Amino acid sequence: MNAPDTDPPEQHSLRVRRLGIDTYREPIIYMREDCHICRSEGFEARSRIKVTVGGRSIVATLNILRDSLLDPGDLGLSDAAWRLLQPREYDLAFLSHPEPLSSLSYVRAKIYGHSLSESQLNSIMQDIVAGRYDDVHLSAFITACAGSRLNIDEVVALTRSMINTGSRLKWQQPVLVDKHCVGGLPGNRTTLIIVPIVAAAGLAMPKTSSRSITSPAGTADTMEQLAPVDLDLDQMQEVVNREGGCIVWGGAVHLSPADDILIAVERELDIDSEEQLIASVLSKKAAAGSTHVIIDIPVGSTAKIRSMNTARSLADTLVQVGGEIGLNVRARITDGEQPVGRGIGPALEARDVLAVLRGEAEAPQDLRERALELAGDVLELSGSLADGEGYERARALLDDGSAWHKFQAICAAQGGMRQPGVAAHRIDVEAEVDGVVASIDNRRLATIAKLAGAPQAPTAGIDLKVRRGTRVNAGDILFTLHAEAPGELDYALGYARSQKGVIAISPEPASQPAWG
Amino acid sequence: MNAPDTDPPEQHSLRVRRLGIDTYREPIIYMREDCHICRSEGFEARSRIKVTVGGRSIVATLNILRDSLLDPGDLGLSDAAWRLLQPREYDLAFLSHPEPLSSLSYVRAKIYGHSLSESQLNSIMQDIVAGRYDDVHLSAFITACAGSRLNIDEVVALTRSMINTGSRLKWQQPVLVDKHCVGGLPGNRTTLIIVPIVAAAGLAMPKTSSRSITSPAGTADTMEQLAPVDLDLDQMQEVVNREGGCIVWGGAVHLSPADDILIAVERELDIDSEEQLIASVLSKKAAAGSTHVIIDIPVGSTAKIRSMNTARSLADTLVQVGGEIGLNVRARITDGEQPVGRGIGPALEARDVLAVLRGEAEAPQDLRERALELAGDVLELSGSLADGEGYERARALLDDGSAWHKFQAICAAQGGMRQPGVAAHRIDVEAEVDGVVASIDNRRLATIAKLAGAPQAPTAGIDLKVRRGTRVNAGDILFTLHAEAPGELDYALGYARSQKGVIAISPEPASQPAWG
Repeated sequence: MNAPDTDPPEQHSLRVRRLGIDTYREPIIYMREDCHICRSEGFEARSRIKVTVGGRSIVATLNILRDSLLDPGDLGLSDAAWRLLQPREYDLAFLSHPEPLSSLSYVRAKIYGHSLSESQLNSIMQDIVAGRYDDVHLSAFITACAGSRLNIDEVVALTRSMINTGSRLKWQQPVLVDKHCVGGLPGNRTTLIIVPIVAAAGLAMPKTSSRSITSPAGTADTMEQLAPVDLDLDQMQEVVNREGGCIVWGGAVHLSPADDILIAVERELDIDSEEQLIASVLSKKAAAGSTHVIIDIPVGSTAKIRSMNTARSLADTLVQVGGEIGLNVRARITDGEQPVGRGIGPALEARDVLAVLRGEAEAPQDLRERALELAGDVLELSGSLADGEGYERARALLDDGSAWHKFQAICAAQGGMRQPGVAAHRIDVEAEVDGVVASIDNRRLATIAKLAGAPQAPTAGIDLKVRRGTRVNAGDILFTLHAEAPGELDYALGYARSQKGVIAISPEPASQPAWG
Repeated sequence: MNAPDTDPPEQHSLRVRRLGIDTYREPIIYMREDCHICRSEGFEARSRIKVTVGGRSIVATLNILRDSLLDPGDLGLSDAAWRLLQPREYDLAFLSHPEPLSSLSYVRAKIYGHSLSESQLNSIMQDIVAGRYDDVHLSAFITACAGSRLNIDEVVALTRSMINTGSRLKWQQPVLVDKHCVGGLPGNRTTLIIVPIVAAAGLAMPKTSSRSITSPAGTADTMEQLAPVDLDLDQMQEVVNREGGCIVWGGAVHLSPADDILIAVERELDIDSEEQLIASVLSKKAAAGSTHVIIDIPVGSTAKIRSMNTARSLADTLVQVGGEIGLNVRARITDGEQPVGRGIGPALEARDVLAVLRGEAEAPQDLRERALELAGDVLELSGSLADGEGYERARALLDDGSAWHKFQAICAAQGGMRQPGVAAHRIDVEAEVDGVVASIDNRRLATIAKLAGAPQAPTAGIDLKVRRGTRVNAGDILFTLHAEAPGELDYALGYARSQKGVIAISPEPASQPAWG
């Protein structure tokens, strides 16, 4: 039989229009119900369609417009589709049925319990990064891998394939240290103290941090209260070459774009798959060019990791997979039973960090101690100090002002240091009974801080006045709510008052933390 | 602590507007970027939001509109959201954060390998039917259950929970027979012959059939060429009470709405999970009130079920699960190596059915024989005949004109019999070499028939002139393409000519079918 007669391309082209519809990351295209292409190709709502404009192609999901939101001959694009295709208004788009996604057969193989090779995982990651997987495909891949269904070879291969499908930073320095915390513990802003200590010790620590996604503050949000963080790669390298360290927002660098896409789906499913977490963390560190990485694993009943067994297994696998991909990894399991420091929210956390760096008497000691321990780990792991000497060296660099001096220099290099603001609207939440603080719920405190406006309102959040074991009388302040607008203050307060046991007070002394 | 101060409801209400956007089954709502609720609630693109209008509530996904497609204070609804909420234009909608979906914890449990109880599966099905699961959740549930991860108790429980979450038909007759084919084999329209035979034998067979989703014709599409099929429940019961049988479209009856939603996602993943298939088929039969069900399982290399082992395992489990839910099930494994009859497409298949019922000499014998065997199975399973007597009784009822008489009566009762049309545009596709037909590809023939316009164009499709083993010379007609528009004829022909081996001709006699 002969080759098919193909239609002339004009028959399958439409003019692109930006409709101004934000569908988050999913590219959606909009066609009129009476569009000739719709009818001739048999496209219907939710059809997956290949769209080509100029040299770029994407696979997008179709929505059908019945009313006259589009002129005949026009193709509407959602913001995500527009970003991926980068067209000009009225450019011609060519539409066709997408090629079958061969990597989906590997996803099906995984669903049926088979192991995947690195090249198969590479194919899957490539299709994910190219936007060819929709939510159904992404969720199937994540689900098929969750529940300990990836063996150690597959975790290594997944990590490598995530690295392969993103950018990779190159550095002149032979040793680059990094530090990562796996669990969102409110106020755990040790990075801003560790980086200046380690840089003051002469090591290179180019830290890329995230902004908050579901928490009241990400490290980048807190740092932004003290200096600019939106640096590009060249600026970041200049800061590190000059000062040895930086703390910038990693979002623009695209170190592991497949991971960024998968994480959004994992969050919706509320799945914390150990294997995915490991691939996620280590792929980003390797892509950033790190050679030595300390991982902070907070354990607590309202933390991300809730048992010592899970934490130890996670630590072991992180070290093992790190070794396979050429990363020197050490994990420290820490107390995750309550927030760290007093502030929760960008500006309030920045205030705590400054107090520690300046050696103020009222600085939160728990934040200081954790930062010193982890900085000591970094110094030891990098080989610059023997085991057991790290903590003392870190403390000396903090106490003699070297770290504070270095932090100011880093801020200046990033664009100029600034002071965190203070929220205009504040209200105290008080204890209703006498007793001892028995437990503090990390998750619900984080929710209250977010309802108060953090992190979009940077001075909003919580200033925590008690810790586990603090003895209180009825009427004592448990925490102060900070907000930038009275409505948000009321909203957070209403939620706080409706919740029982966010800060639980018992007549007995508090029990030992579960992790100790 | 006290109850929270709640905002007055006006602050959280918007006026609903139908935007005329068909997003298929996913309810989407559209809010302006500058909407006060968006901002105060922290809603962003892809947030899941509870929308209440009047007494109805749904959970919908948010898209944000930047441009002026909506007036301030308005909330846009997609068609799916509009169908679910059934509002009037400008009704007030109240928006809030949805309650957490507790059934998702059962999905997570399944992901982590735990078994689910019937009450847990019931919760999941209830949330699915209520539209509370988005694609990510649905895909996770399907993936977690696929790959033989449901044990027999869970398959039974899943089947029961699918029945519980839909309508259930009630009948006076103590015995209600039914018949189902698990695999889409083109032209396999035995139902239209079995129902009149069985009804002529005095049994009650209220058949609800599907329209095509991905095939060139569903049973309801073919029946519609001969009589109306859009009957409501009362009309259907009247037909059955008068004539003993009916063949109507089951789509309006909502027998297993959870299954309808899950099937769409399974199709996108191209997963044929045996357990889901069983729950799907048996839940619909039980909900329809059937007591005795014959299942046709075609096996062939281009059929849905490709090996005898799979077919036997499927047959055993169907019988076992059927027994658990009170259904008498018998399965027949049949030849799925090639299409049944000659026509593929609604009108062409209807023509074949009429030829068999009328006893015409040129009627396709394969369609006749399969229908007689399955009708015989139905008669035996129902207990009205001893094993071994069913086929002969079925043949007698067909050959003496009883079935043809009954079929005409059923058509009249459904609203009046009509004759299938013939397509205006036809073209022959011919053999290019001499030889014997070695194989026929069911899937690609179905694709060609769809490209020709079936089933939307009811007279479009394929008229197949050969079968496996037919000896042909170059220039002999293999099949005739039928279309209602010249463009569709060209399009189907172009595809047909580009494909190798849809009808494979070898110089040797054809080998035995794999199933035999």
